[in-house]
Amino acid sequence: MPDAARPLGRVLQPRSIALVGASADPRSFGGFVLANVERFGFAGALHLVSRSSAEIGGRACVKTVDELPEGIDLAVLAIPEAGVLDAVRSLGARHCHAAVLFASGYAETGDEGRAKQAELAAVAEAAGMLLIGPNCMGFTHFAAGVPVTFELLERDAYRAAEAGHGGIGIIAQSGFMAATLRDAFTGRGLPLTCQFSTGNEASVGVEDVLAAYLDDAATRVIAVYAEQVRRPRLFLSLARRARELGKPIVLLMPGRSERARHAAASHTGALAGDHASASVLLQREAVVVVDTLDELFDTTAVLLSHPRPAAGGAAFVTGSGAMKNIALDLADGIGLDLPALGAPTVQALAEKLPSYAVAENPLDYTTIGVRQPGLIGELVHTMAADPAVGSVVLCIPVGPVMAQRDKADHIVPALGRCPKPAVLVLTGDAGPVEPFFLEAIRASGVPFFRSADRALRALKRVAQYAEALERAARTDEFAARPLPDAGLPGPAPANGIYPEYQGKAWLNSAGIAVPHGSLARTADEAVAIAEGLGWPVVIKAQASSLPHKSDVGGVIVGLADAAALRAGWVTLMDNLATHRPDLTLGGVPGSGLDGVLVEAMGSRGLELVVGARNDPAWGPVVLVGLGGVWIEALRDVRLIPPDLAEPDIVAELQRLKAAPMLAGIRGATGVDVAAIAHVVATLGALMRANPAIAEIDVNPLVAYPDRVLALDALIVVGPAQGASA
Amino acid sequence: MPDAARPLGRVLQPRSIALVGASADPRSFGGFVLANVERFGFAGALHLVSRSSAEIGGRACVKTVDELPEGIDLAVLAIPEAGVLDAVRSLGARHCHAAVLFASGYAETGDEGRAKQAELAAVAEAAGMLLIGPNCMGFTHFAAGVPVTFELLERDAYRAAEAGHGGIGIIAQSGFMAATLRDAFTGRGLPLTCQFSTGNEASVGVEDVLAAYLDDAATRVIAVYAEQVRRPRLFLSLARRARELGKPIVLLMPGRSERARHAAASHTGALAGDHASASVLLQREAVVVVDTLDELFDTTAVLLSHPRPAAGGAAFVTGSGAMKNIALDLADGIGLDLPALGAPTVQALAEKLPSYAVAENPLDYTTIGVRQPGLIGELVHTMAADPAVGSVVLCIPVGPVMAQRDKADHIVPALGRCPKPAVLVLTGDAGPVEPFFLEAIRASGVPFFRSADRALRALKRVAQYAEALERAARTDEFAARPLPDAGLPGPAPANGIYPEYQGKAWLNSAGIAVPHGSLARTADEAVAIAEGLGWPVVIKAQASSLPHKSDVGGVIVGLADAAALRAGWVTLMDNLATHRPDLTLGGVPGSGLDGVLVEAMGSRGLELVVGARNDPAWGPVVLVGLGGVWIEALRDVRLIPPDLAEPDIVAELQRLKAAPMLAGIRGATGVDVAAIAHVVATLGALMRANPAIAEIDVNPLVAYPDRVLALDALIVVGPAQGASA
Repeated sequence: MPDAARPLGRVLQPRSIALVGASADPRSFGGFVLANVERFGFAGALHLVSRSSAEIGGRACVKTVDELPEGIDLAVLAIPEAGVLDAVRSLGARHCHAAVLFASGYAETGDEGRAKQAELAAVAEAAGMLLIGPNCMGFTHFAAGVPVTFELLERDAYRAAEAGHGGIGIIAQSGFMAATLRDAFTGRGLPLTCQFSTGNEASVGVEDVLAAYLDDAATRVIAVYAEQVRRPRLFLSLARRARELGKPIVLLMPGRSERARHAAASHTGALAGDHASASVLLQREAVVVVDTLDELFDTTAVLLSHPRPAAGGAAFVTGSGAMKNIALDLADGIGLDLPALGAPTVQALAEKLPSYAVAENPLDYTTIGVRQPGLIGELVHTMAADPAVGSVVLCIPVGPVMAQRDKADHIVPALGRCPKPAVLVLTGDAGPVEPFFLEAIRASGVPFFRSADRALRALKRVAQYAEALERAARTDEFAARPLPDAGLPGPAPANGIYPEYQGKAWLNSAGIAVPHGSLARTADEAVAIAEGLGWPVVIKAQASSLPHKSDVGGVIVGLADAAALRAGWVTLMDNLATHRPDLTLGGVPGSGLDGVLVEAMGSRGLELVVGARNDPAWGPVVLVGLGGVWIEALRDVRLIPPDLAEPDIVAELQRLKAAPMLAGIRGATGVDVAAIAHVVATLGALMRANPAIAEIDVNPLVAYPDRVLALDALIVVGPAQGASA
Repeated sequence: MPDAARPLGRVLQPRSIALVGASADPRSFGGFVLANVERFGFAGALHLVSRSSAEIGGRACVKTVDELPEGIDLAVLAIPEAGVLDAVRSLGARHCHAAVLFASGYAETGDEGRAKQAELAAVAEAAGMLLIGPNCMGFTHFAAGVPVTFELLERDAYRAAEAGHGGIGIIAQSGFMAATLRDAFTGRGLPLTCQFSTGNEASVGVEDVLAAYLDDAATRVIAVYAEQVRRPRLFLSLARRARELGKPIVLLMPGRSERARHAAASHTGALAGDHASASVLLQREAVVVVDTLDELFDTTAVLLSHPRPAAGGAAFVTGSGAMKNIALDLADGIGLDLPALGAPTVQALAEKLPSYAVAENPLDYTTIGVRQPGLIGELVHTMAADPAVGSVVLCIPVGPVMAQRDKADHIVPALGRCPKPAVLVLTGDAGPVEPFFLEAIRASGVPFFRSADRALRALKRVAQYAEALERAARTDEFAARPLPDAGLPGPAPANGIYPEYQGKAWLNSAGIAVPHGSLARTADEAVAIAEGLGWPVVIKAQASSLPHKSDVGGVIVGLADAAALRAGWVTLMDNLATHRPDLTLGGVPGSGLDGVLVEAMGSRGLELVVGARNDPAWGPVVLVGLGGVWIEALRDVRLIPPDLAEPDIVAELQRLKAAPMLAGIRGATGVDVAAIAHVVATLGALMRANPAIAEIDVNPLVAYPDRVLALDALIVVGPAQGASA
């Protein structure tokens, strides 16, 4: 079970603030905080602590923390690292609820700093006090007027979310990113609830702020930048709650590239998690995982206007044939569906369009819009009404002043009334737009772009989100089914690795087909087994300590008759005697060879690799791909959540680059994709039912037109083998 | 040889303009043109032709074109289609130099319109008059003050290129795109020379305008949007001249996706060319082929500041650890190299940085920049001095007003002095920036972005351009070598298809290894040949009319001895008798079977496909990839210019997804990549030497660790088989 989030209590909307390190110097951290608090008109009690000044700007100061009243809601420590520990201790003694620590010099600097941070955290924990930071830039709650940050803020620049409408909540470990997100949303005139930088997260982390935003009715969409999620299972459970609440979480988490993973590890002083596994499990809970900062801004902006988008592709509407062609290339390049329209939509469009315009998606309505600005809105609504359409982009030029007036008066309100996300793109990049037109767009809440590239990328994410919500509902239903009661494959071996025959028996009991075969301890036994199976057979040495048996000549294939089998038996024993003299038949139980597995040899089929791994941080994930060059040279695999429903697993398999191989190319027959999906689902269920299992590998799983067969099985229990690179 | 460009003569800077269809109605096309010409203060003679008004705004009008003086430089026809042909005829009679035709209803509407357009073109051609359009939005020459377009323009909004500095020249078939590009560059305050929309290109096309821009000293960079290049060889020869002049051409040409190719064909009423071949040949001449509109804007903007960039990756400089990680993911995602720095650079950086900052690329200089704004410029220059670095990005927040002043005073001028492209990114998307800061950036000419995503994508293109310039120089050198004097494989067959044995002999004479073998006309001859070759052999029926011999049982492999060969001979003849009774041995020469090729069978190797095709529009291109699933399921091929130098071909081969197969995976030995490259180069040279050849296919080319062998050869002469989809 995930641990619970720490309730932030009165942190975001404190009744009292103590500024420790208040300063009359307007360029000091303390001076910036004071200026911010005054500019935002903080309504509660403000206490100043200053070693050097008795009063600042007409406000009396106390000399030390010990002179503060008891039970302050929020202390802001604008002091150097050297004084922080004592201040925290004193604040704790005075039952202060929470403290913001700007100081750096902690975990981000190495072992010594990590120790200092641990001490701080322990002191605060003992006193029941929350710490925000250290090495953070604090937070700003816009509606409550609480700007406890050392960035100098202009109150007028920001639009706070108003009651009933809702706005964006921002969370970032990095103060720079929290500020960047705030500036980006501010630049579009979007309403904000709160911007929070968690820094080193000595106690309050991204998860705690996320929980607080979920509880906050005014926060409608949550934008997160996280280099590291310290409590992944908690984050996932909050993400689940977020989708139940209909609050999208848009997340940028660097680490797709190996260099970024290494850099993030050194930046935050923490181990890099498995980025790919994390992304898959986050997407399972409908977290919108984006790749770039622009996508983070843009997707959040669209979801703010439509937090519960309908599934479907995008409709693209323009008056330019060139723009239509560009949109086709763009959408193809990013994998955004521009769906064909249904016959009723085509007919409804045709009735509104001149005869020389083609009623299709993308739609080029030609020059007719210039003369009938009201028509454009009708075209957008007609396209949005098509069941295949999830969102609409209207891409038009800014135009001369007169035309801008028409657009502001007719087109913008029509987009604002659209029940699906209807995005406005004014072409011409940063070219000038009349202020009244910009103001009309802002007031309407219509998502607004100057780049069709960016608009389409954002709508791709919105479409993924809508699809993820539907998929998550199916996944939940599938996940609620009873798990297999498979137990473990047997008593856990000392090294945690089950020999193949045990793993196979276990998989077989869970419904996964394996070759017929039995364990032999003598050549005579082997021949008897083979005669029961039919020739040819394969023999494979079995021991917990021999997971890579092929490497030492422990597997001999294609034994066509008894003589060949007996000769093979001798060869196998010779190979073991040479390479692994510890493995003898009849030795001490558990330390020697358990026997030799004699199996019927199957016919050739398509080889896949299916594996499952219990990511120590994030939980189990299943991997599937074609074997050989596909996995080795092309890294062509899909990662799949362990509780995904089988039809959705089939859809994932179709996303493999090798998907044409599954269907059969060059006249080859296709393979049983549903059976592959069933194996993937079964491994996922086994992982969920048995948290002790660290890893399952079925390599190869051979697929035939009507079935699949697990030719090998490796099951590992115990502590995971470490996060993968 | 490409035909020459049409000289535009006095079109762009006319001494006299006649506005046909002048109107007192300010909302008519004629009214817009008149308003534009007056606003831009056109200095030459302006003649108005109006059927209804004797004077407009104090200017006298004539009633008909026939009343105009002779030898007008430029007529602008702001009249409906119905009157255009007569007006053009009359203008031609009066020796008018050129006419701009706004009217639509021509080739873009279908066959009837195409006929009308052809008539217009013929009339103008006979009179020696240039036509711009029809279905165009005209052009605006900013420096000369010639705005002959029906878009209403505000003179003050645009910055004309000044003498000595240079600006951007814009060309687009689509008027919408010409305007979009103009607005985008205007929005950045970039200087423009001319914006030209060619429309349907009845006579003046993209190529002619391009040639004029190359001759124009003030045009420093050329941004082109083209759905169709009507004179590809001319465009390529102009591109070659552009790179000699050091004027980058940045081109967006939709058609990467199949849907866009179809749409472009219907939009322009012309056949879609081979987009991939076109891109490869354009890149061979260092045209910067971009994928999106944003890339077109952004790459042009950077190249305007540095039209001759140095080769190398990008250095990324920031004060945020988070931004550094984001940059690593971004660069990895788009394939932009962020190179490791040389030891001298690292040392020079370390001397400037605090001990806790790491001197590397990307560089996080931590918070030191806040206190020392002058230092940032030094860091940028130090990184730019590294030989591995081709460009630098400085990515910083906008910051409070005071900090913006520091940045404007210290950082911007330092970037402006950088000898390599040094790009400024102010984070926070469209968040507010003080006007003085924006003005300082504009005045400096420093390429400016609000998105790191976009900046890095642009620098990727700039790096490709620098690399393309170097590669083009190597290619030119290679292309200057004498071509093989191979002639054709023999007298051209009626269907243009040479039988395999002739193709192989021809390839072999050009230095490409083929299996040993000879043509047999009887089984006895075949056995004698096989005994000379050694067993086993393969036999293959040979006839010009049998290019796909395997399909009819015309190939029999693995014949291990004389008996097998005789049996195989019978089988082969039976197969032919069944499927192709027209092919008999000893029939009429040229209509029957030439014989049966008996060849030694080689050992297994890695199968590749190498082909060359003479694109009817663009010229020859060579294709190479691995056979089987790689080409069929993954479309994993590289297209290669026919004169690329062999080391560059090797570099292209390394870009195949299958490249690990060439090096050898799973313990396999690698193959002779240089020998593959040599075959590619040889096919390219053969295509260049023999323009009559439409197609060469070597499928498979088998690669071994120390050589390659062409197992099959298909050579086709004559008219090309049509543009590929």
